[in-house]
Amino acid sequence: MTPRANARFPKIPEMTIRRLSVYTRCLLQLEEDGVKTVSSQELAERFNLNSAQVRKDLAYFGEFGVRGIGYYVSGLKAELQRILGLDREWAVALVGFGNLGSALFHYRGFTRQGFRIAAIFDEDPRKVAREIDSTPIFPSRDLGREVKARGIQIAIVAVPSDAAQSVADQLVAAGIKAILNFAPARIKVPKDVRFKNVDLSIELETLSFYLAKSSR
Amino acid sequence: MTPRANARFPKIPEMTIRRLSVYTRCLLQLEEDGVKTVSSQELAERFNLNSAQVRKDLAYFGEFGVRGIGYYVSGLKAELQRILGLDREWAVALVGFGNLGSALFHYRGFTRQGFRIAAIFDEDPRKVAREIDSTPIFPSRDLGREVKARGIQIAIVAVPSDAAQSVADQLVAAGIKAILNFAPARIKVPKDVRFKNVDLSIELETLSFYLAKSSR
Repeated sequence: MTPRANARFPKIPEMTIRRLSVYTRCLLQLEEDGVKTVSSQELAERFNLNSAQVRKDLAYFGEFGVRGIGYYVSGLKAELQRILGLDREWAVALVGFGNLGSALFHYRGFTRQGFRIAAIFDEDPRKVAREIDSTPIFPSRDLGREVKARGIQIAIVAVPSDAAQSVADQLVAAGIKAILNFAPARIKVPKDVRFKNVDLSIELETLSFYLAKSSR
Repeated sequence: MTPRANARFPKIPEMTIRRLSVYTRCLLQLEEDGVKTVSSQELAERFNLNSAQVRKDLAYFGEFGVRGIGYYVSGLKAELQRILGLDREWAVALVGFGNLGSALFHYRGFTRQGFRIAAIFDEDPRKVAREIDSTPIFPSRDLGREVKARGIQIAIVAVPSDAAQSVADQLVAAGIKAILNFAPARIKVPKDVRFKNVDLSIELETLSFYLAKSSR
């Protein structure tokens, strides 16, 4: 679940990467609001962050602050986008086109960050061989061919739990190096494939924690 | 975004709460696998966690380890479930029954953790006044009445962005104290309402970070 250490940026915690995403969103808001510079304290106060944490997270990647000024909003935003790989477009495969797959396909947040769903795959013969908003839907057996043909590097898995492992195996065989999985299933992939489970109930649990606490 | 400090457990970081959810899942797996006791080191190694972090997170809530033994898997799991409010059932309102709402309704992870969707609300007259899997679908104007009648405390918002603020206002007026929002929109709620945005693209960004890095 936690990313493995790597040579270029040793031991960067996955939570730091997540927070970079959050900081990028905060900076986008500030930019929209016409703010030119911001200190780590102002950033922390406005968005309910921890200013020491902000400085520590950014320090993994360089020296971004300017003494007496703070951070240049647009400059820091662009740097973080580059670090997160958001300065380019990623072709993404979506596997599974049920309710969840369909919702993810229409999720505007992905496109906004440069993730373009380049192909959809589904087992259901009634769904394949057509297009949705110009995106083709293929049968799963075409996965290997289409992933290569379309330069797809990331896959989103939105299939039922019992199909998740076999889909992951197909994706790995097709050369995919990063998988975001929404199926509530235990899945194994080789060590060189980055794999991330999205567990939506964790989000609800942070809410129930606080409700439970206040009712005790 | 970050929870406010509170009297009973002062200054517990939201990330600690998220990690408690992760630990609970790890302990469930160990329990399924027949493991009776586990040390923080074993837990960390098996699930790619940080053992010092595990101990620090648990220390907010008490002394769970037994010298020379580690943690009792079932006992610690039950404690964490109680702390997270998962030892009871929560009645949840789902607002918005499009693709995303429908996917969330069928998401098995929620029910498994004790979150029961007790009522669905939608604006579309073609969707309301019927039931899906015994769960009633109401027009949004019935929100106040049904939330009270059904003892609903948590709401999931899965409406289009431009409707999200007005839905949040209705939920607050109905007395809801915790909102999980999937609409990619800026929403304001009063300070005593716990509000959480789910941004699915953050998950993709931790993947693109690693892909971008390895291609640099």
